[in-house]
Amino acid sequence: MKIDLIKEHHSFSGLSSFYSHESALTKTKMNFSVLFPNKIKEAKNCIIWLSGLTCNEENFITKAGAQAYIDQSDTLIICPDTSPRGLDLKDEHESWDFGSAASFYINATTNGYVDHYQMEDYIVNEIVDLVKENFNSLDFSIMGHSMGGHGALTLGLKYPKLFKTVSAFSPIVNPMNCPWGQKAFSGYLGQDQAEWAKHDATELIRNGARHQNKILIDQGSSDNFLEKELLTENIVKIAKEKSQPLEVNYREGFDHSYYFIASFIEGHIKLHQTNF
Amino acid sequence: MKIDLIKEHHSFSGLSSFYSHESALTKTKMNFSVLFPNKIKEAKNCIIWLSGLTCNEENFITKAGAQAYIDQSDTLIICPDTSPRGLDLKDEHESWDFGSAASFYINATTNGYVDHYQMEDYIVNEIVDLVKENFNSLDFSIMGHSMGGHGALTLGLKYPKLFKTVSAFSPIVNPMNCPWGQKAFSGYLGQDQAEWAKHDATELIRNGARHQNKILIDQGSSDNFLEKELLTENIVKIAKEKSQPLEVNYREGFDHSYYFIASFIEGHIKLHQTNF
Repeated sequence: MKIDLIKEHHSFSGLSSFYSHESALTKTKMNFSVLFPNKIKEAKNCIIWLSGLTCNEENFITKAGAQAYIDQSDTLIICPDTSPRGLDLKDEHESWDFGSAASFYINATTNGYVDHYQMEDYIVNEIVDLVKENFNSLDFSIMGHSMGGHGALTLGLKYPKLFKTVSAFSPIVNPMNCPWGQKAFSGYLGQDQAEWAKHDATELIRNGARHQNKILIDQGSSDNFLEKELLTENIVKIAKEKSQPLEVNYREGFDHSYYFIASFIEGHIKLHQTNF
Repeated sequence: MKIDLIKEHHSFSGLSSFYSHESALTKTKMNFSVLFPNKIKEAKNCIIWLSGLTCNEENFITKAGAQAYIDQSDTLIICPDTSPRGLDLKDEHESWDFGSAASFYINATTNGYVDHYQMEDYIVNEIVDLVKENFNSLDFSIMGHSMGGHGALTLGLKYPKLFKTVSAFSPIVNPMNCPWGQKAFSGYLGQDQAEWAKHDATELIRNGARHQNKILIDQGSSDNFLEKELLTENIVKIAKEKSQPLEVNYREGFDHSYYFIASFIEGHIKLHQTNF
């Protein structure tokens, strides 16, 4: 799979690199970035980071301070973009919580979006394959923030063999029951709520999905989106009912920002590395 | 001295906080940010960070990953803005390397600028005083990047009693002899090169200025500005002649970006903390 290097910065003992490639699944050019622990640009282990609403492939790289924690390890981190770009679908660019930069990492079925917003398949097939092929990784795990935390939880629960560890910061744990999720699922999937449930971490666990390893969630207690959008307690409750191992750390005073992510990313990376 | 809290994020065990205040020296509102190692918002030691061209009080806070290295220590880091704001002086907003976000941390003497661009006095008096008064710091040091590296070197050499440590990333070490410096000094000081030399680290050392402690410089070998603007070897040569202790680390492959700063900031902070 051909990838094109756009720019690259030396960073600690490794590199922070930005690429694009032609995606067969989104039928667009897609951007991604990679934190390499070394300059040979390969690592046995790959953590996939999924970013949140309004973000792109750059936010995590510049703001999370993660490179220090993978330096000289056998783990790289890849950050896909949050949606296809360069299209002009209906309503795609009208709001910050739908369309561009807001894919929710699902395979859309609605008119127009079905042709490009195949982000679930894009992550679990195309991203995984290009990492294997270009950077020689053998083992994968997944983490993310907010909408990307939803992506990490749902893809981790749906592909537990592929992703050895699943963790999230401030994830949308029950999108069917919050405004962000309802808007996105309506637009990408139509009105059939049985379809929505297939892309909702809480509903997936309720319906029997299970990850073999403990899922880790960090959640700021002063996060403005906690009560209306994130609904963390819904996954706590269902995980307990269904005996899904889950650790949720409420972090007092922390908000929804990258300051929060930077403060706790080391613990997430350590957990992922332990499970590889 | 009254300061107004604009916003604040929990970060590690401390806070990343943004303030503004009315400056008596620039006669404008000025912005600054602080990385606190704790939540009581005081620390015995204060490192002043001076940012580079086009930056403001936010860049270092979000991109350098410094908070991890001061966490739970007795050191805070304050990041002043790179110039006064909200004015409309002649040529102030025409180019990215002069006027707003490009103060060069000197006291201007030219028409219009003399009334507001008093950045040397602003840093060594007003910033220092407000930190003492509001955050109870007793000891100070200074570091910076590019134009801010120039600021750290020159203010450190001019006020060696005040600043216990002086260090810089990619500094403009001899602004009299590079296009950025010549443009800035012409605009802020007029054409008298004897005045320019008072704000040039290489010329200050040549003319007898000395810092009692080793000055630390990190410089990327792949920095696009190295040969034309930064002129690192000029300070190496004069420091040797004048026996100014100086450590310059050329970092192979690194560029002028915050990826470079993040990679080596820990060593700078450790040096500053050793000298407090």
